[in-house]
Amino acid sequence: MHLSKVRRWVFGRPLKTIDAPHQSISKTVGLAVFASDSLSSVAYAGGEILLVLATIGAAHYWLAVPITVAICILLIILTLSYRQTIFAYPGGGGAYIVARDNLGEAPAQGAGAALLTDYVLTVSVSIASGVDQIASAFPVLFDYKVQLSLFLILVMALVNLRGVKESGRIFALPTYYFITMMLLMIGAGFWQAVNGTLGVVGEVPGAHLETVSLTGLALGLLILRAFSSGTTAVTGVEAISNGITAFKEPRSKNAATTLLWDAALLMVMFLGLGTLGYLIGAQASEQEVLISQVARVVFGDGTLRLLTLSSATVILIMAANTSFADFPRLAALHAGDGFLPKQFTFRGSRLVFSTGVIILAALASLLIFIFGGNVSRLIPLYAIGVFLSFTLSQAGMVKRWQKVGELMRTGQLTPSNEIATLGSILRYDHLWRPKQALNALGAVITAIVTLVFLVSKFTQGAWIIAILIPSLLLLFFRIHHHYRHVAQVLSTAGEHVSAGRFPIQTILLISDVHRETLRLVEYANSLGVPWTAIHVGVNEGRLESIHQKWQERVGMGELVILPSPYRSLSQPIRHYVKSLLAQAPNGYVQVLMGQLRTGSPMTQLLHQNSHFIEQLALQDLDHVVVAVVPIQLSALEQEEDEGDADDVRAELAEPPVRV
Amino acid sequence: MHLSKVRRWVFGRPLKTIDAPHQSISKTVGLAVFASDSLSSVAYAGGEILLVLATIGAAHYWLAVPITVAICILLIILTLSYRQTIFAYPGGGGAYIVARDNLGEAPAQGAGAALLTDYVLTVSVSIASGVDQIASAFPVLFDYKVQLSLFLILVMALVNLRGVKESGRIFALPTYYFITMMLLMIGAGFWQAVNGTLGVVGEVPGAHLETVSLTGLALGLLILRAFSSGTTAVTGVEAISNGITAFKEPRSKNAATTLLWDAALLMVMFLGLGTLGYLIGAQASEQEVLISQVARVVFGDGTLRLLTLSSATVILIMAANTSFADFPRLAALHAGDGFLPKQFTFRGSRLVFSTGVIILAALASLLIFIFGGNVSRLIPLYAIGVFLSFTLSQAGMVKRWQKVGELMRTGQLTPSNEIATLGSILRYDHLWRPKQALNALGAVITAIVTLVFLVSKFTQGAWIIAILIPSLLLLFFRIHHHYRHVAQVLSTAGEHVSAGRFPIQTILLISDVHRETLRLVEYANSLGVPWTAIHVGVNEGRLESIHQKWQERVGMGELVILPSPYRSLSQPIRHYVKSLLAQAPNGYVQVLMGQLRTGSPMTQLLHQNSHFIEQLALQDLDHVVVAVVPIQLSALEQEEDEGDADDVRAELAEPPVRV
Repeated sequence: MHLSKVRRWVFGRPLKTIDAPHQSISKTVGLAVFASDSLSSVAYAGGEILLVLATIGAAHYWLAVPITVAICILLIILTLSYRQTIFAYPGGGGAYIVARDNLGEAPAQGAGAALLTDYVLTVSVSIASGVDQIASAFPVLFDYKVQLSLFLILVMALVNLRGVKESGRIFALPTYYFITMMLLMIGAGFWQAVNGTLGVVGEVPGAHLETVSLTGLALGLLILRAFSSGTTAVTGVEAISNGITAFKEPRSKNAATTLLWDAALLMVMFLGLGTLGYLIGAQASEQEVLISQVARVVFGDGTLRLLTLSSATVILIMAANTSFADFPRLAALHAGDGFLPKQFTFRGSRLVFSTGVIILAALASLLIFIFGGNVSRLIPLYAIGVFLSFTLSQAGMVKRWQKVGELMRTGQLTPSNEIATLGSILRYDHLWRPKQALNALGAVITAIVTLVFLVSKFTQGAWIIAILIPSLLLLFFRIHHHYRHVAQVLSTAGEHVSAGRFPIQTILLISDVHRETLRLVEYANSLGVPWTAIHVGVNEGRLESIHQKWQERVGMGELVILPSPYRSLSQPIRHYVKSLLAQAPNGYVQVLMGQLRTGSPMTQLLHQNSHFIEQLALQDLDHVVVAVVPIQLSALEQEEDEGDADDVRAELAEPPVRV
Repeated sequence: MHLSKVRRWVFGRPLKTIDAPHQSISKTVGLAVFASDSLSSVAYAGGEILLVLATIGAAHYWLAVPITVAICILLIILTLSYRQTIFAYPGGGGAYIVARDNLGEAPAQGAGAALLTDYVLTVSVSIASGVDQIASAFPVLFDYKVQLSLFLILVMALVNLRGVKESGRIFALPTYYFITMMLLMIGAGFWQAVNGTLGVVGEVPGAHLETVSLTGLALGLLILRAFSSGTTAVTGVEAISNGITAFKEPRSKNAATTLLWDAALLMVMFLGLGTLGYLIGAQASEQEVLISQVARVVFGDGTLRLLTLSSATVILIMAANTSFADFPRLAALHAGDGFLPKQFTFRGSRLVFSTGVIILAALASLLIFIFGGNVSRLIPLYAIGVFLSFTLSQAGMVKRWQKVGELMRTGQLTPSNEIATLGSILRYDHLWRPKQALNALGAVITAIVTLVFLVSKFTQGAWIIAILIPSLLLLFFRIHHHYRHVAQVLSTAGEHVSAGRFPIQTILLISDVHRETLRLVEYANSLGVPWTAIHVGVNEGRLESIHQKWQERVGMGELVILPSPYRSLSQPIRHYVKSLLAQAPNGYVQVLMGQLRTGSPMTQLLHQNSHFIEQLALQDLDHVVVAVVPIQLSALEQEEDEGDADDVRAELAEPPVRV
């Protein structure tokens, strides 16, 4: 099995079940692990605001500054609101768990559907933006953006199928590299601005030139659209609340501190980059990203600009990589509860949820392909899922505080006792009202942002998500229903296997009289059951010779020829088997067929592999057992000298058939 | 089987083998059928010449006129040379057949490999160019060229899988539509030129602006490159010699007349368009094709220009469609001789060589994807195969005339007798020497063009073809070797089936104790053989419960638990089966496994389908027979009331496994 060697080389040696890692990380590493997702959005959010504003002309680029400030206020509210989730769910407070604990099954599945959708988009957007950074540095690559993106996703899928061990350390370097380069650039930029030495950007390749005059409602909608594009900057702040268990004790406290650091860094970078962009007269462009323009003015065209762009590329790839951890884990959670195919719960040889990794890579690649790897076209689909899950999670928290308040009022919850729920522990808290108000504010604001996003970007692609998430929700519940139904039907409680014996009719499918046929007959004889041989006459010219060879070389049993005017191999057999079933309704039909195995997948493809076709054709019949009797080419080679030429020619002329 | 209904709706009702069409067509229809391939190249060849010349600046665009004239001379020689092939091979004189008849197996396979490669490229180039015409008319579609091309190829594949009946009539309209629009435009253009009212093209979107100064060798190479790009115009003239049998009697004469008409029309259009392009100052552009620029000047921006562009689009699609007829037919020829997988010879339900259609569509789509649907990037790969096959075919004709000459000299061939060869009939011909000289001229000229193409475009992609065609040739012969070898090994001449009975050991694979398991046990009992049940312990937590249920509900036979620390389902079974084989080296191991069939492909995907994994794992073992005992969900539903809740929960919690 040389395939298994290739697999081992690509994916590494298998890991035992008990090898599952149990590591805990410090705040510094935690910041590196979880911040890549949120910080990386700085690389495109600012530029996307400009691209929307470009419609009404570069004279309105100043609007980007107040929009950025508004988004920062949103970020502050979200951070404080999520801080409370971290303390309430020390075991991990993803939107799925919080919604399930407080709001019930349907909102939880809704939050899950929204998050799964968004993980896919995180990969597409991050990779597309990462490639944009590369193409800004090397414009010659601009034409190959799609191919480059798909290649990167393929590599990430392979790496993640292998399993990312000691992920903390791998993350630390790129995240801090990016933070360093961004702070350096922003610091230097403001220093130059204060000293009056900050330049302007001049000509930008691919800069937008069109200008439409908008007023009133249309202008308002456009500003909302720019705001929506910018809100992609706050995606990723929920990551820490998902991964609290990864932190060292005291977990919640460490996670909360890390969240504050993450938010503070994000705000400094987003505001800094936006302001600098305005000061240098940055242009909306799909060919040169905002970071590249700022770096060009602040650092010049040399090494420092390339270092800045490479740091942005690397952190974007890391951000995509967090989805490769989150998507399979969440999908496995859903699947474990019976809302997604069970395959999502299988851990591969490297303890990775392989199905999730493969599906994520395939869907993200599909999006990249459909939208031509263009970040601006992907953005309208992005962030809706995140904001919807924000809303559900915060609404769940509001409900939770209400529960705490109720229990305190009725005296069931006192300063000296605790009450456990599905995912959290309820504690006495005399500040429950202000805390509830803060989560309610978070829920309302994110609900408004979700709506703004949906409305302002509806025609640009948000409608896809508006259809997709409810459809997924429906699908999840249908899957759940199917699993419950099958489990009920298969159940054997209180039953016992029947002692009776049922009649079995055996048929042998033969395509010619060669070694495969002789092997089949020998096996049927060894079984010691009566049998009939069947040949489907797809090629009338060969029937005579087959009959003759059968008499000469087998000379036992009955050979039945089934006519097949439409050259179908499978239909005549299907009808024949059905007639046998009708003769003995309680019995079985055993269909024996031979298969030549060449020992290599490449040469196996050269053969008809009709056993596969036949199995498919009999797929929907009950009480029909298909048995494949193999004959290995290598085994034949050892015992055999060469056949005669006439026979060889006959073998070569296999008949034309159809499925 | 609702799938078969969908299939019938998409692909139509199955056709009987004896329904294969035998139609013969007139010269007018023949021109329409075969000319689409050759005439359509007018839509891009001229523009591609300009795109190469653009490197040295618009001031050198006049060079396009002498290059076009040179290509027309090449076309005249080719036409006369191929006219002789048509008379020599009235049964169809494709390069494969002529080379096989005169030069032997290797050159024939080489010609075939070259042609197959080129059929794929014809589809890619024609569709990409067709989409270019559309994008010239509607620039907003420019960004979606790749998606649009892939969609068109998909539709063509579906149409061709359905089978194109009465193809003559389908072809007639578009071809004559294109001829009419082109002649109208060229006529009107020259009329305007003579009257001095012909305008100039003015600004062209995406016009090339770069200018490099080249001299000496580099300039010469560039001109050769422009010439090579232009020679794509003559591809397709071989089509008629392939399809002589489709013509009415006298076949050869009708085909030859059609060829002359085809060549004459091609020359008028190619020269006319090239000259007009020069007169209006047409610009090299990947956004607006040459026909669009000329039509804009001659017809203005209105309906006539759109009609012209639409005629070009349609004929390009028709040209791609000829490959959908030719590729599967040639692949079937190769496969019939054992040089390609036999699947290529199978006719589908609609009498179409389905495999060839699917493979062609897949490869052409891949090329479109890799090269971003860009005609200029595809062109360096194109035409090499055609010119190589031209050379081989003409060289074969030279050899054939030599044979005629020899036979005449020795008196074996006289005016009153004929000698048959593999694909043709040798006749006495006192003009054999000049005719041989003409074919020799054709062979030498096309060989030179092949070399010029290869050298001048080598770094731009021609190297791919230089590697691909020899690799294909090698592959063909390896496939042939494999088929011969297998046929020899399988041959049973002079043998007789052995009368002995061999010991069979039976094992039952069980994942749990539910209805599937009971069915399996009942079937094994009905077979009347001793058996052992095997469970792979991927989930230690469930072993206790399975053991208990086995005792309660089966209570017979032995249940063996195989440990599986790496969660592998297949490896423990593989080892167990190997140990059984070692115990009885001459015997068989029969592996029985159950499969729940849900009756729909969608819900089937929700189940583990582990029988598939197991079959794969036992794939390379000889004497191991795998039998799948099905249990249909629908059958269970009829007989069953609901199971108890505990059991249902256990069923839902299937263990995590790996392949």
